[in-house]
Amino acid sequence: MATTDVQTLNDVANRLRVSAIEMTCASKSGHPTSSASAAEIVSTLFFGEMRYSVQAPREAGADRFILSKGHACPVLYAAWEEAGLLTKEQTLSLRKLNSDIEGHPTPRLNFIDVATGSLGQGLGYAAGMAYVGKYVDKADYRVYTLLGDGESSEGAVWEAAQFASIYKLDNLVAIVDVNRLGQSQAAPLGHNTDVFAARFTAFGFHSIIVDGHDVSALLAAYAEAKATKGKPTAIIARTLKGKGIPDVEDLENWHGKPVAAEKIAVIQARIKNPKPTWSIPKPTTVAESQLNLGGIKLSSPPSYKLGDKVATRLAYGTALAKLADSSPHILAFDADTKNSTFADKIIANHPNQFVECFIAEQNMVSAAIGAGCRGRSIPFCSTFAAFFTRAADQIRMGAISFANAKFVGSHAGVSIGEDGPSQMALEDLALFRAIPDGVVLYPSDATSAERATEIAANHRGIVFIRTGRPALPVLYTADETFALGQSKVLKNTLAQAGKKVILIGAGVTLYEALDAHKQLAAEGIQSAVIDLFSVKPIDTKTISETAKQAGPNPVIITVEDHYQAGGIGEAVASALGPLPENYTVHSLFITGVPRSGTPDQLLDLFGINAKGIVNLAKKVAA
Amino acid sequence: MATTDVQTLNDVANRLRVSAIEMTCASKSGHPTSSASAAEIVSTLFFGEMRYSVQAPREAGADRFILSKGHACPVLYAAWEEAGLLTKEQTLSLRKLNSDIEGHPTPRLNFIDVATGSLGQGLGYAAGMAYVGKYVDKADYRVYTLLGDGESSEGAVWEAAQFASIYKLDNLVAIVDVNRLGQSQAAPLGHNTDVFAARFTAFGFHSIIVDGHDVSALLAAYAEAKATKGKPTAIIARTLKGKGIPDVEDLENWHGKPVAAEKIAVIQARIKNPKPTWSIPKPTTVAESQLNLGGIKLSSPPSYKLGDKVATRLAYGTALAKLADSSPHILAFDADTKNSTFADKIIANHPNQFVECFIAEQNMVSAAIGAGCRGRSIPFCSTFAAFFTRAADQIRMGAISFANAKFVGSHAGVSIGEDGPSQMALEDLALFRAIPDGVVLYPSDATSAERATEIAANHRGIVFIRTGRPALPVLYTADETFALGQSKVLKNTLAQAGKKVILIGAGVTLYEALDAHKQLAAEGIQSAVIDLFSVKPIDTKTISETAKQAGPNPVIITVEDHYQAGGIGEAVASALGPLPENYTVHSLFITGVPRSGTPDQLLDLFGINAKGIVNLAKKVAA
Repeated sequence: MATTDVQTLNDVANRLRVSAIEMTCASKSGHPTSSASAAEIVSTLFFGEMRYSVQAPREAGADRFILSKGHACPVLYAAWEEAGLLTKEQTLSLRKLNSDIEGHPTPRLNFIDVATGSLGQGLGYAAGMAYVGKYVDKADYRVYTLLGDGESSEGAVWEAAQFASIYKLDNLVAIVDVNRLGQSQAAPLGHNTDVFAARFTAFGFHSIIVDGHDVSALLAAYAEAKATKGKPTAIIARTLKGKGIPDVEDLENWHGKPVAAEKIAVIQARIKNPKPTWSIPKPTTVAESQLNLGGIKLSSPPSYKLGDKVATRLAYGTALAKLADSSPHILAFDADTKNSTFADKIIANHPNQFVECFIAEQNMVSAAIGAGCRGRSIPFCSTFAAFFTRAADQIRMGAISFANAKFVGSHAGVSIGEDGPSQMALEDLALFRAIPDGVVLYPSDATSAERATEIAANHRGIVFIRTGRPALPVLYTADETFALGQSKVLKNTLAQAGKKVILIGAGVTLYEALDAHKQLAAEGIQSAVIDLFSVKPIDTKTISETAKQAGPNPVIITVEDHYQAGGIGEAVASALGPLPENYTVHSLFITGVPRSGTPDQLLDLFGINAKGIVNLAKKVAA
Repeated sequence: MATTDVQTLNDVANRLRVSAIEMTCASKSGHPTSSASAAEIVSTLFFGEMRYSVQAPREAGADRFILSKGHACPVLYAAWEEAGLLTKEQTLSLRKLNSDIEGHPTPRLNFIDVATGSLGQGLGYAAGMAYVGKYVDKADYRVYTLLGDGESSEGAVWEAAQFASIYKLDNLVAIVDVNRLGQSQAAPLGHNTDVFAARFTAFGFHSIIVDGHDVSALLAAYAEAKATKGKPTAIIARTLKGKGIPDVEDLENWHGKPVAAEKIAVIQARIKNPKPTWSIPKPTTVAESQLNLGGIKLSSPPSYKLGDKVATRLAYGTALAKLADSSPHILAFDADTKNSTFADKIIANHPNQFVECFIAEQNMVSAAIGAGCRGRSIPFCSTFAAFFTRAADQIRMGAISFANAKFVGSHAGVSIGEDGPSQMALEDLALFRAIPDGVVLYPSDATSAERATEIAANHRGIVFIRTGRPALPVLYTADETFALGQSKVLKNTLAQAGKKVILIGAGVTLYEALDAHKQLAAEGIQSAVIDLFSVKPIDTKTISETAKQAGPNPVIITVEDHYQAGGIGEAVASALGPLPENYTVHSLFITGVPRSGTPDQLLDLFGINAKGIVNLAKKVAA
């Protein structure tokens, strides 16, 4: 490499430092020191290595860059300023309300694929993108991610590393900015770059140790990565936090703190040449740069006989396979539970649309979100619903990424029976209801489960489908239509004389409500039974209008195989709360840590069966 | 080792296999094959290595055993049957409703410390116990944990491994049962024991590869572990799933399936000698076998001047240090955020009561839960509240473990401001409200924050305290008393004429409610302001009785810096739902993904400030 090029990239690095200091001085908060350690890594990536278009930063064929250490975003914003995408005015709007130049990166910006800022998630996103690049797009774009040394303590990093090596993602490069210092003290491995290298090597990477401030060494490492086939590469870059900033470099207590603006002059003085006009290598070609992800139908409608017993988890698998018949862009991810979630149904005819993630739910979620970026696929993730709690933070970050990803959790509630509480999802509705603009569907029979899957594929955003373990009778014929935000009234004798109550169930409890309806009728208590189906958005209209048929003081009983917090009862109570009618909402739910037993015994133990509903209804019906 | 001893332990292993098959045949479900691969590991640990008391399995000085691969519990139950603690009748009650011999282990059994069954968590628990053994109890009990190869894909395993090596836990032994087969297919590393060894070595362990069915090799490995100083040991045991079961051993599709009872005879035939009378080595001595964890007081009462501005997170740190003045059993865990959560306040006078966990929240939670086992400490964990979502599954399992652990999450809500959504906890109340019997406290000022911390220390179980970033005025004098389940009415002019509304807030929104109260008074609207404080258990009595003072159709407005799902509004709506009065509950909450901005701007953007409350109150007050 020519000496002038070295100087050019060193100049860029220092301009990035200056810009990062300027913006964090303007915002009076942020991370100039974590930016400074990464300045050469970013300058070499953006101006010596990567292929992209400044005009269309998320072009399908462009190399990807994920800033896993999201707090260092000033250096990333500075790079896009250097490239000409952002103006100085824009970067100086860092962290201000009306600016998308936020404190941590989000896809509100057109050059960001995924939100970062919760540490240790970038490699998982990047692995998902690299998987799609290699096996789905079959394109030669490359994926780079920059991690901090501190965040490498996160287990999610190692889940992603294993995934990347299993799938031989040689289009993936992880760069670790080993700047030695964490937030509150030194990071655990200090400058022991050997240990980082040994770990990545043991997890199947080609590891390279470099001086992270030596632009020639960095460029050589990228070239070595490109020449390495059959495995991903980790570049362990020894750096100094606050590099180049006088009286700050390599010192503790400078995490997340702006530095004095006077420091800028010293760094400015190191810049030899004026900013060049950049000519950045063009993105590679991708067969279809824009995929059609809309209008995906089940290849054949659900075809169940009313009353036949089919588990909703099995119907999910069937629907997934049917959607894959219709679209090559459906990708199914599972974490070694595919024969329980029935995600394995997709494999028979579409083996290339299935991605085994093994027992690593965090990475499954991050990889799936990554796979969905730039509209390259519609990812479906499945595991036991309980185990999505393992990836709660990744799902949370998915919401901030405005991700298009579908989560299907099986084995909901105590109705799984003998396996016991560790396998029972009882907080999954709360978890997914807390996703802003997220959709939560809870089909009760096979027909609605297939339709829920179809709805999920066609809804842009995060969708959760709760499926169950037990085989239960089919309630709906093939021609029944389902929609977001739409519940179904299955029984309604409220027009008849007598005390009245409205029963709301979903999944296994819907059948208990239907049974209770019969028993109550025999005792002269009139009821309506609502199949909630769409937990979020909730169908306030159907619920309130049905309830009003009971008279001026309607009594509602919700019954759910879930804890109280954030579940169906709270969803209904909070939906009806602001309405003027005097609704009374009673809720049956799981009241303590469950235990092993048969499903029927457990429903009975917690009173969420027909008997429990009838007992309560007899007390409260009005 | 004498040949007879080898035969004895081989006989034990086969009796364990027989028993595991018998119990899973009786329950018609469960995991005999995952038990069979571990039979020699368990026989050598329980009858050749570990020191414990059959009469008091959780004695303070006993060696610990954590079955991380919890689904293999039949082999563990069989071991305790062999040892004489359980009867055959008991083990045959596996997975039945009235039996504590559950499908996965829980501490309902007196020989289980922590629930397992969500994979990859055992090493974290074990590391916490080993930390306490080495540094707190300063005893020489040892901690053993048995992992599966499949679950070693979980990142939490590697977080725990790093923690164990940082703290040189040479009293800790991780044994990996490399039986090659997962649930739905082969595990990713097959029988490549070298790779497991390389990974553990890179994470700071002494690694030993053995034939996991060779009892002599296993005993030698335990001895080598004991002789290894300054680092934990990993024993990589090559095994066969279903070992010894004809036509099942090492074959796919046998995960979680009972095998034919006829297989028993073949295994029985291999047993040479009758069951001996066991004489198991006695537990080691621990200075205080029973610690007094009750009645821990702040060493001095809160002493703030009304109106002084103090962040609740700072008051938490102050209280933590004061509790440590009073008790050596308080242990504070933090994940490299101690200078933000103010957990670092404990270090000045009690450096040995602080455990830095670095950026690995999953392991922080598991290690803390482990540290609290057998009453050896009262663990407090702190990080940004948002990052407890990273450990949602570990917290969920903590509930199933009936753990005594305290979680303190700072930086709640949009009121953190400029850092942006990735750092804002907006689902933490939902997460912790979903813990059965869990407590959720949300102090609004420094005085109540100190008292909340004191309450948490003295409440046996899981407690979450939500603290905030901004410094806010002190509301309570030192003599104010606080209790679980108790809210405070701060303002109440409901007795006066006019339209009326009840305002419920907590944290930053309480101050907005107080401000709104003033503004509403100026407009002739009477209101009460309730400081919720105890989110769970919720103070239904104070809320409903205060509300009733507004007349027959009380209007309530809740306002929270949290998403709707599972938050304060839903807690209040569901608490009032079953009551006969016609309460109307309106809720203000965060309605979408937030962004960077100043705290005030963000409160305004989502309408959770005084202006938003006043606007709504003017519409709905009645």
